[in-house]
Amino acid sequence: MSSTTPTWQMPYGAYYKADTVAHDPEITEAGPGTPMGTYMRRFWQPVCLSAELTDVPKAIRILNEDLVAFRDRSGRIGVLQRHCAHRGTSLEFGIIQPKGIRCCYHGWVYDIDGRILEMPAEPKDSRVYGTVFQGAYPAFERHGLVFAYMGKPEEKPAFPEYDVYRYPAGNKLVAFSNNYKCNWLQVYENIMDHMHTALLHNNMTVDALDQAIKDGLNFPEAFKNLPVMDWEKTRNGHGCTFIAGRRVNDERIWVRMTEMIFPNLIQNANLMPTAHEVRHSTVCMTRWHVPVDDTHSILFGWRHFNDEVDPKRFGREDGCGYDKIDFLDGQCERPYAIGQRAPGDWDAICSQRPIAVHALENPGTTDVGVYLCRRLLRELVRGKTAADRTRPMSADGKDTLQCWGSDSTLAAPRPADPEEDRALMKALGRRVYAAVADADRLPSPERRRYILGRLDQIDGGGQRRAAE
Amino acid sequence: MSSTTPTWQMPYGAYYKADTVAHDPEITEAGPGTPMGTYMRRFWQPVCLSAELTDVPKAIRILNEDLVAFRDRSGRIGVLQRHCAHRGTSLEFGIIQPKGIRCCYHGWVYDIDGRILEMPAEPKDSRVYGTVFQGAYPAFERHGLVFAYMGKPEEKPAFPEYDVYRYPAGNKLVAFSNNYKCNWLQVYENIMDHMHTALLHNNMTVDALDQAIKDGLNFPEAFKNLPVMDWEKTRNGHGCTFIAGRRVNDERIWVRMTEMIFPNLIQNANLMPTAHEVRHSTVCMTRWHVPVDDTHSILFGWRHFNDEVDPKRFGREDGCGYDKIDFLDGQCERPYAIGQRAPGDWDAICSQRPIAVHALENPGTTDVGVYLCRRLLRELVRGKTAADRTRPMSADGKDTLQCWGSDSTLAAPRPADPEEDRALMKALGRRVYAAVADADRLPSPERRRYILGRLDQIDGGGQRRAAE
Amino acid sequence: MSSTTPTWQMPYGAYYKADTVAHDPEITEAGPGTPMGTYMRRFWQPVCLSAELTDVPKAIRILNEDLVAFRDRSGRIGVLQRHCAHRGTSLEFGIIQPKGIRCCYHGWVYDIDGRILEMPAEPKDSRVYGTVFQGAYPAFERHGLVFAYMGKPEEKPAFPEYDVYRYPAGNKLVAFSNNYKCNWLQVYENIMDHMHTALLHNNMTVDALDQAIKDGLNFPEAFKNLPVMDWEKTRNGHGCTFIAGRRVNDERIWVRMTEMIFPNLIQNANLMPTAHEVRHSTVCMTRWHVPVDDTHSILFGWRHFNDEVDPKRFGREDGCGYDKIDFLDGQCERPYAIGQRAPGDWDAICSQRPIAVHALENPGTTDVGVYLCRRLLRELVRGKTAADRTRPMSADGKDTLQCWGSDSTLAAPRPADPEEDRALMKALGRRVYAAVADADRLPSPERRRYILGRLDQIDGGGQRRAAE
Repeated sequence: MSSTTPTWQMPYGAYYKADTVAHDPEITEAGPGTPMGTYMRRFWQPVCLSAELTDVPKAIRILNEDLVAFRDRSGRIGVLQRHCAHRGTSLEFGIIQPKGIRCCYHGWVYDIDGRILEMPAEPKDSRVYGTVFQGAYPAFERHGLVFAYMGKPEEKPAFPEYDVYRYPAGNKLVAFSNNYKCNWLQVYENIMDHMHTALLHNNMTVDALDQAIKDGLNFPEAFKNLPVMDWEKTRNGHGCTFIAGRRVNDERIWVRMTEMIFPNLIQNANLMPTAHEVRHSTVCMTRWHVPVDDTHSILFGWRHFNDEVDPKRFGREDGCGYDKIDFLDGQCERPYAIGQRAPGDWDAICSQRPIAVHALENPGTTDVGVYLCRRLLRELVRGKTAADRTRPMSADGKDTLQCWGSDSTLAAPRPADPEEDRALMKALGRRVYAAVADADRLPSPERRRYILGRLDQIDGGGQRRAAE
Repeated sequence: MSSTTPTWQMPYGAYYKADTVAHDPEITEAGPGTPMGTYMRRFWQPVCLSAELTDVPKAIRILNEDLVAFRDRSGRIGVLQRHCAHRGTSLEFGIIQPKGIRCCYHGWVYDIDGRILEMPAEPKDSRVYGTVFQGAYPAFERHGLVFAYMGKPEEKPAFPEYDVYRYPAGNKLVAFSNNYKCNWLQVYENIMDHMHTALLHNNMTVDALDQAIKDGLNFPEAFKNLPVMDWEKTRNGHGCTFIAGRRVNDERIWVRMTEMIFPNLIQNANLMPTAHEVRHSTVCMTRWHVPVDDTHSILFGWRHFNDEVDPKRFGREDGCGYDKIDFLDGQCERPYAIGQRAPGDWDAICSQRPIAVHALENPGTTDVGVYLCRRLLRELVRGKTAADRTRPMSADGKDTLQCWGSDSTLAAPRPADPEEDRALMKALGRRVYAAVADADRLPSPERRRYILGRLDQIDGGGQRRAAE
Repeated sequence: MSSTTPTWQMPYGAYYKADTVAHDPEITEAGPGTPMGTYMRRFWQPVCLSAELTDVPKAIRILNEDLVAFRDRSGRIGVLQRHCAHRGTSLEFGIIQPKGIRCCYHGWVYDIDGRILEMPAEPKDSRVYGTVFQGAYPAFERHGLVFAYMGKPEEKPAFPEYDVYRYPAGNKLVAFSNNYKCNWLQVYENIMDHMHTALLHNNMTVDALDQAIKDGLNFPEAFKNLPVMDWEKTRNGHGCTFIAGRRVNDERIWVRMTEMIFPNLIQNANLMPTAHEVRHSTVCMTRWHVPVDDTHSILFGWRHFNDEVDPKRFGREDGCGYDKIDFLDGQCERPYAIGQRAPGDWDAICSQRPIAVHALENPGTTDVGVYLCRRLLRELVRGKTAADRTRPMSADGKDTLQCWGSDSTLAAPRPADPEEDRALMKALGRRVYAAVADADRLPSPERRRYILGRLDQIDGGGQRRAAE
């Protein structure tokens, strides 16, 4: 070490390693008027579970805005700004009406679109009717989630329909949420960091841990091998995916892809213990990473229950709900002493600081996907990304958007040289990726069959026959 | 909607309805040196209940100042700045003395006026005696409340004696308090918004509410009709009152007035179920709305127990005390789940935000009194209001200040036309208001009889005879 | 009072006594880069108890820095910056290794000096090895305390060895801690304010206090007399001591010294009920006042158990540990209601405000030592103090640094005139101080005998014979 240029790049160098660099607001903060907040508002966002709407309104905070959500007694969903347009009383104390909601203070009734339906103590011809509106956002329910559109009214998009919501036939979507005490981005980008599944989720616990806790952590064995990783942007920069190749045994390779659809949607591939056994399965979990405020976020999503992704039915519908998911303890908050002994995603990610500080990181090869995700998000926010030229959803939603998240297995005898094997896994991953990409040309019902055909072309159908 | 001028004045317009306007500091903030804080310090303020003074000092925060209140063992009341003038230790850990209070750290003893009586480890001739004083405020007890004067010592006023404190004969004042987690002004101005009694307090609850909770909310039936409202400033701009007319039945009209005496006193009219039955009654509750800090306040007051205001003795003295009043659940904080199902003043008002944001309001006709109150307060704070020219209190307090808060009933057959009836209620309200105003010329003991005479002139004594 | 110059120097003058002056950051704040923080980092500091290091890492905050301390499975102590150098995950969720600690997220293993030992998912030849280090501080354990050096690596000093750590023979050091919810300085400087022992610790309680609480407060009777105080700087301005003289009886005087060794060490004299009986005893407690952040601090220390300081063995080793000491209730936090009735150091000192405001103080003669301490600290921080010219520790630590903290008793018949007696106590105090100072020339094992000889010279050996 030179005495003139103190450095932290030495043993015992903490004195020179200042910990004061700021977070990156451009892609982490999502309040009104922020770059990412404005971008995120272009998309439908889940804001609560259907199960949270009862006989009283639900106070929610989404994208740094105080709101109230309710289901009126006609069954319609309202998402309104929380404070009454009249004198500011919170509508969380409002009385739900057959149509709309009544503020408790002076009894003004608002429809779900913010129109005033009644002001009991005001003249019938008050000019307040028609000039004053409660701030409202369009909203609807779908499979247990409540979605709202918080962007410019004149730019409201259709809700994106993905093929995996209705395929395979009989697919059942079950809603859940997962509360994080940290910024949304570090939870979201974690998916591109697929390598952590082989580390954090690989029995990384303190010795002599209580067996019951250990059991809860059981991530499928197949994830515990370090994969050969690749990453690729999708949808012309509006998404990205990882491509993870793993050798299953001397005869077989497993290729896994999970896609981020920006700004905050993920279509997770298979998480069941059979993920590496089936010929081809698609999405196991759909989830949105929704900012509450800059240092809190909620992961809202659907678990997919069907025979393709979970032929042996390991999943449990009743394990999904408010702040709970049916696999892998450590996704939700647990007592500190347990988190310390058997850390999970929640502990690892929340403890990156309330907002992770990118400028203090020292990335390695595992972080390529995370940095790709951040770069693509920044380009989107800055308006540098061209429109998505991939095949659009049909107007009636019957022909849907494709999902890339998938697991495929292929026959591929193990070469003698491990490096050659790694190259093989990477090459096969690329061929699967190409097959999925090409399927994008087709109508939804034909995609799966097309991909299966391409997999047969790749390995001559060997693994298909083995899996059958 | 024009595409060039986005507006929130439309259904689903929340995106354009920013919620970032600031509160109005001039009339809401009351810390040292603020406009309202300086004005409020001209008046005696209650600072705690007598019952809160025990064998140890009581740490209090009033007008953003940290203080300590105590009753020394001679029975005298001290209100001192909280931190010892010597080295800053809090006098809440002081030991109450036969005379004054002793700081626990070095044993300095302060008298209730802040003089140093003893410094055990300092020389007897220390120049600290006579040059150092503990910051002190004059204080006294009255009917269970402790009052302090926190203004300029050279401008200390007499404590204002109102006739309703001693009339009717046998009147008993019982102290209470009521803690609010919001700015003082929104709690105070609520009284001018008399219409809310017909809405918030009108069984505005969720269906299937637990009956015990429902029972606690029972506001007298008579308040549940929408009144004909009028407002008037009083005391040359140093107060204001509402005048509420309601029809009791085909033969009778009820006129109610409740006065604010600025900056933060209210003399509440009758709250008993018989309020609309007696010929004439005066004050049922006296209360001061005292800022703790900008986002917390305490309502200190006296409930009046006497046969005039409560002939059937519905009130309960033992229901009054620390953070409790003997009527209408929902004045004090309750569990959130109950507040949501049966909202009361506490829920409606605290939820207007920690400090209500006037600039975001959209007032209606019910809000005329609230806006009058704010305007008069602003003029007082700005020094634009002339002195109160109404009849002053006598020097010995024997002839007191008049109270306008009152309920009166008059014989007044219902006209066929509802609009004519409303005009009648308004006109009778005005005549009662004039009678009460004219009574201001008289000595205290003669006022009630004079007002009763005027009521007889108005309706020919018809309602008096009915009520007798 | 003049009407043109309002003053608070009067009874009831609180209105003019503004409470808004700021604290003194130069000698109270200790974060990175602050004047005092930089100075304090030149010294080894205790950061936790050995007992706090278990099978999981201990998250600590010291000098405003977030750290993690652990004992690896080879028994070595690590004190690392809390957030992993890779992606920021907290190492409090790390898994302790045979050598070093493994971050839970991607499995990077750091040695106790911050070197990367393993990155499971990175190439073996990654350039991250050798260029990235976890911020680390040197650390070691000693008698139940964990010490770290948080200063410039190139200026790391030896750990100062004081003779009282190993003399008298058989001395046993037992570790404890004591958490304060306030700035470190007001707790530290309290020792120079020796007079408070005769006031705060002199049964200063509310009447009718529960006897069990009263018993816990029992400070030795001998401390309850007001002493004759003197103060002197030591070690050329790198320390200071008080010299307290008290008359024990008609024949005997007790001289007590407790030394501060800057910036934050204290060597406490005897605290046992026999403190005023033995001829000469030295240190009863060694303690460091360590800032956590600007408004929290921890007192870490060792109680000394030996026959010299506690011949009758009143002390209790099992009364020392995490946030507990074996004497005098009120050092550690207790329920508020008890603190109010029987205030102790914790209550008196924490309540001086989160950071005591020196500019609001009105010091008396008891505060001379406190102000001396602050002045000396300020000079040190500003670099105005010359090096310590007193006898240094030998390189092997076998000949140690001297401690001045001590209690000595001397034969000294009481003069008739109380003032003459005070002068006598002061003069004898000075002579004892000179004896202790002169002992500094000698090697450690000879000091005690030398001081005892000097005491015999002072009083002719009279008190020695009485004490034997």
